[in-house]
Amino acid sequence: MRGGGAAMARLAVTARAFSASASAAGGVAMVQGASRGIGLEFVRQLLRRSDEGRVVATCRAPGNAAELQKLKEEHAPGRLAVLPLDVTDESTIEAAAASIQETHGSLDLLINSTGILSIPNVIQPETTLSKVQKSSLLLAYEVNAVGPILVIKHMWPLLKVGGRSETGRGFSLVANMSARVSSIGDNGLGGWHSYRASKTALNQLTKTVSVEFGRKDNIACILLHPGTVDTDLSRPFQRNVPKDKLFTREFSVQKLLSIIDSVKKSDNGKFFAWDGQEIPW
Amino acid sequence: MRGGGAAMARLAVTARAFSASASAAGGVAMVQGASRGIGLEFVRQLLRRSDEGRVVATCRAPGNAAELQKLKEEHAPGRLAVLPLDVTDESTIEAAAASIQETHGSLDLLINSTGILSIPNVIQPETTLSKVQKSSLLLAYEVNAVGPILVIKHMWPLLKVGGRSETGRGFSLVANMSARVSSIGDNGLGGWHSYRASKTALNQLTKTVSVEFGRKDNIACILLHPGTVDTDLSRPFQRNVPKDKLFTREFSVQKLLSIIDSVKKSDNGKFFAWDGQEIPW
Ligand SMILES: NC(=O)c1ccc[n+]([C@@H]2O[C@H](COP(=O)([O-])OP(=O)(O)OC[C@H]3O[C@@H](n4cnc5c(N)ncnc54)[C@H](OP(=O)(O)O)[C@@H]3O)[C@@H](O)[C@H]2O)c1
Ligand SMILES: NC(=O)c1ccc[n+]([C@@H]2O[C@H](COP(=O)([O-])OP(=O)(O)OC[C@H]3O[C@@H](n4cnc5c(N)ncnc54)[C@H](OP(=O)(O)O)[C@@H]3O)[C@@H](O)[C@H]2O)c1
Repeated sequence: MRGGGAAMARLAVTARAFSASASAAGGVAMVQGASRGIGLEFVRQLLRRSDEGRVVATCRAPGNAAELQKLKEEHAPGRLAVLPLDVTDESTIEAAAASIQETHGSLDLLINSTGILSIPNVIQPETTLSKVQKSSLLLAYEVNAVGPILVIKHMWPLLKVGGRSETGRGFSLVANMSARVSSIGDNGLGGWHSYRASKTALNQLTKTVSVEFGRKDNIACILLHPGTVDTDLSRPFQRNVPKDKLFTREFSVQKLLSIIDSVKKSDNGKFFAWDGQEIPW
Repeated sequence: MRGGGAAMARLAVTARAFSASASAAGGVAMVQGASRGIGLEFVRQLLRRSDEGRVVATCRAPGNAAELQKLKEEHAPGRLAVLPLDVTDESTIEAAAASIQETHGSLDLLINSTGILSIPNVIQPETTLSKVQKSSLLLAYEVNAVGPILVIKHMWPLLKVGGRSETGRGFSLVANMSARVSSIGDNGLGGWHSYRASKTALNQLTKTVSVEFGRKDNIACILLHPGTVDTDLSRPFQRNVPKDKLFTREFSVQKLLSIIDSVKKSDNGKFFAWDGQEIPW
């Protein structure tokens, strides 16, 4: 019995090592906030680009994420894993990290796409200071700023061992979805207090993390602005957006992936718009 | 009886009008977070500079604020009022606004000085990402970013009617205490995630509010960095500060008040260090 147990354990280790080396070829990418919108489109395009890269898509309710389940069926077994992760529940982040550790042993790319701007009867972008509510400020902060940072915290050990040159880039990359309205220098319109402040804080947190990574690790962090993209998030606010300024998800993610592909280690801590232009803080 | 009631009401209105016009001469300044440190020193220096200006000092526990009570006794009756205000309890902010409305009817200057960096066993400036805790991120945000903005929200009606030219400046001024470490562009050291992000968010919220004030009101908002100042807040972190870089409260507040005195309406939304230099976002 004891001999059998040891053999089983050896087998499990071998299986893990095999799956880890198998996924090293095209790398392992995690897309956090992948049920809809830009996150879902990242998963779709990442799966389309190579026969070898593995994608871990996380979302709050994998059972309801019909699009992700469909993508899983369309691709070879093992290419897409869908894991539950709610950024407001740290235990789900830890569980996702443990699962990725078990299956892949490393991460080469982490895209944090989760974000909230409006939820009916819960949070609305403020048009004036008199509408600013403490509950909205705190909720936007928890989801848009605290959430991505906790994800990076728990994926850090996986990112440290990722990014080897066989996977292409030679370093691991974290890309956080920010928004142009987070720029303080560029804020000429006012309003949207909760969303703006949460994304500005995300910029500062990402910069802070980038300083530590730059010092110790083979990891870079960047911030991205996708443009105004036709998703559930922007839908209620599209009325005043000129048609040629409203991007499809396909177009925006193509642009963002070309930034992700061409980023250098020295871009660590920078904030890029979809067209590659740096955005002022 | 009804006639008596009306006479009483008239008397109360007259008393209010009298006190409002009496305090207009030197203006009415509110210092929020005045029990200790830089806030307390603002109260001390504001009281010293004119025989007419009124100061409203707020703190969480006026009963324990011995220094404020002493200042109250040292100055003419009515020059200093001490009101309870905890930025994490919005009802205390509303009550303070109602009390100032009743006594003065307007505000010419609002200084938000409240801030937290470390509290034993509750929050510590993080030295690495692995020490970042959700509870610290949220607490720093609630006190350092949400708090001052809710104070401005509720004092807004008083600020709108303040700032008349008789009081000196010709517009009302809000000064929020930020910190140089809130600058994303200037963040070369990393660490202090919770504090940094909360103050960066305060910068964005102040800028956002300044846009609305600039459009509608005779109010300007600025952000201030006091330097590294010898207070309870900095004490645990003074070891590596060169002696000539550690300011006394007296020196820092003198410098900050000279900025507050010379600020123009066109400085609305700017971030100044103690020496008048603008700090990049
Ligand atoms: N669309 C734009 O024009 C635009 C512009 C600038 C920046 N951005 C940023 O780009 C990112 C993606 O936006 P989008 O337009 O794709 O938004 P979206 O279509 O509304 O999708 C938002 C995603 O966030 C997820 N999410 C919400 N709360 C979550 C939580 N607590 N835990 C985990 N996931 C959560 C949603 O999952 P559920 O399905 O479970 O709700 C959904 O997958 C956001 O960070 C957004 O701020 C978008
Ligand atoms: N000292 C520095 O070197 C330095 C440098 C850069 C920026 N700053 C900023 O300057 C400001 C003043 O700092 P300081 O050095 O004077 O700090 P301090 O001596 O520690 O005083 C902090 C003040 O904030 C108050 N406070 C804390 N939590 C509060 C709450 N929930 N509601 C209302 N008041 C609350 C405290 O009141 P209690 O007495 O009730 O606790 C105290 O009066 C802060 O915003 C700080 O971030 C300071």
